[in-house]
Amino acid sequence: MSQTKPLNITTIGAGTIGLSYAALHLSHASKDVSALQITIHDTRPDLEEHILQTLPTHIPCTLQKLRNDRRIAYDVEIDDYVSVHRLIIDKDLESAVAEAHIVQEQGPEDAEFKTALWPKVEKYCPPNALLWSSTSGIPASTQCIAMKDPSRLLVVHPYNPPHIMPLLEIVPSLATAPKVIERTLDFWKNKDRTPLVLKKETTGFVANRLAYALLREAIHLVKEGVASVKDIDDLMTSSMGPRWAVAGIFKSYHAGGGVGGLEGFFKNIGGTVQACWDDIGAVNVGEGWEKDIFRQTREAYGLVDTVERDEKTRRVLDAVKSKE
Amino acid sequence: MSQTKPLNITTIGAGTIGLSYAALHLSHASKDVSALQITIHDTRPDLEEHILQTLPTHIPCTLQKLRNDRRIAYDVEIDDYVSVHRLIIDKDLESAVAEAHIVQEQGPEDAEFKTALWPKVEKYCPPNALLWSSTSGIPASTQCIAMKDPSRLLVVHPYNPPHIMPLLEIVPSLATAPKVIERTLDFWKNKDRTPLVLKKETTGFVANRLAYALLREAIHLVKEGVASVKDIDDLMTSSMGPRWAVAGIFKSYHAGGGVGGLEGFFKNIGGTVQACWDDIGAVNVGEGWEKDIFRQTREAYGLVDTVERDEKTRRVLDAVKSKE
Repeated sequence: MSQTKPLNITTIGAGTIGLSYAALHLSHASKDVSALQITIHDTRPDLEEHILQTLPTHIPCTLQKLRNDRRIAYDVEIDDYVSVHRLIIDKDLESAVAEAHIVQEQGPEDAEFKTALWPKVEKYCPPNALLWSSTSGIPASTQCIAMKDPSRLLVVHPYNPPHIMPLLEIVPSLATAPKVIERTLDFWKNKDRTPLVLKKETTGFVANRLAYALLREAIHLVKEGVASVKDIDDLMTSSMGPRWAVAGIFKSYHAGGGVGGLEGFFKNIGGTVQACWDDIGAVNVGEGWEKDIFRQTREAYGLVDTVERDEKTRRVLDAVKSKE
Repeated sequence: MSQTKPLNITTIGAGTIGLSYAALHLSHASKDVSALQITIHDTRPDLEEHILQTLPTHIPCTLQKLRNDRRIAYDVEIDDYVSVHRLIIDKDLESAVAEAHIVQEQGPEDAEFKTALWPKVEKYCPPNALLWSSTSGIPASTQCIAMKDPSRLLVVHPYNPPHIMPLLEIVPSLATAPKVIERTLDFWKNKDRTPLVLKKETTGFVANRLAYALLREAIHLVKEGVASVKDIDDLMTSSMGPRWAVAGIFKSYHAGGGVGGLEGFFKNIGGTVQACWDDIGAVNVGEGWEKDIFRQTREAYGLVDTVERDEKTRRVLDAVKSKE
């Protein structure tokens, strides 16, 4: 075992995102971190059992129990990986964050919960700890309102599941200190992830907004009887999915325009693009399309095997990287 | 060489799509076709030179000239592939389609051109030949208006470039014969492609409509200063690209909803989805966002290396398929 002082990361909330983040930290070596202590805090009664069941489905690992007092401790040995890390399970918030270098919050998506949490966290944790929320929609500027020092907080929004997906949307509030943003970016870059700082707090951030725009049109086309749910999914996996795994939308159409680039693309087919935009369907939640679309989706897929999905996604990401 | 009578495919138009289709036919073996003759028809003066330059960038092949009369003929030997196919270059439409089993049109995106072409094609080609247009926007119901037998025509719209991308949007008109749709589907399924029949002729078909809906929101977010062109592309390649290479949007959110499926997903975060939809930006072509976005894209990418992109995309598609 390494003698280096470990990096302490506390995750608040042991739901899907919390445990996936824990798996990410445990399985992805960082250039400047050789030993790691992950503390998982949650108030659910079956916390230990839940972690022992879920974590090994994310990363192949062996958990060795060290002690069973108020702070339950495990050694975590990751297969094909040299380090042994420490896992602490702690139902007490104060001790869970007391030695944290980083606190990651993934509690309920509820502004009241989050605004009440942060003043406690900032009181109990070391003064230099980075405070990150994994929220998909409640901006740091809302979450920080009861904090003494709102400059410490920002959103680090993953694309689910974070132990597979490289993207992290870094969304500071206007109060977040530049140094905090910088340290956050450094951490993720050293972990070979793709952290992107949004320049403004925007409803839904960027990734979900883009995906929901496409989803809205997909629902419209199913509703209009142009294609089925399954047709649209098959279409995506055989066209824009693989394309956008390799090049984003601007780069793709820039290539599509040949020597004229994106400008050439719009010169050639801007008329068609606008015709599609003029014809776009703006469905809304609760308008009645739900029943048929939920049914089609259920019939097409039943319960999705996310382990298989994640394994394939990992291979796709490796395929893009290889020979670069 | 096989003694089987070859399948004759004539492509009208030797632009990007035409030659990519030729590469697809030559490089992808079909379960029921052992010998192939591709005839390329175009009126451009440098036709032969253009083909000799472009085709080997799509597929590794050796071209051996056989004769140089009015119908120029080559043997095409594909590397790592057993068959030798025949390539004919023919500037005369009548003889180009005279023995065709399939005619694929990828001429200019101009309704007048296409409506004038098909009556000539149906006059010169065998009565059973399948007639396919590669148009991205002019429906078969428009293209067929001057034909004697409009039941023979349908759209087979590829996702560019077709020698890499599996998707083919099959868009019949109301006049297209079911037998013609069926034979078209059989052909592509035997070539291990993903042909999808749209149930209605819709502006822009499906793949482009979905992509343009996302593009519109991407432009909006750049215009509003939330993220740069490069940020949005990096975000896509590290999140929804690899995800949608593996599972389309409905399946993805169905998985995201856990045991509740897509219904559970909307129950949990339908409010956030609607908030994003309410806030969606509806930019239009020619509204002034172009200058900055074209500049950002040019500065980020210069001229895109499509050979590298296609090689990576091929690896992504293989990665999804492997171990299935």
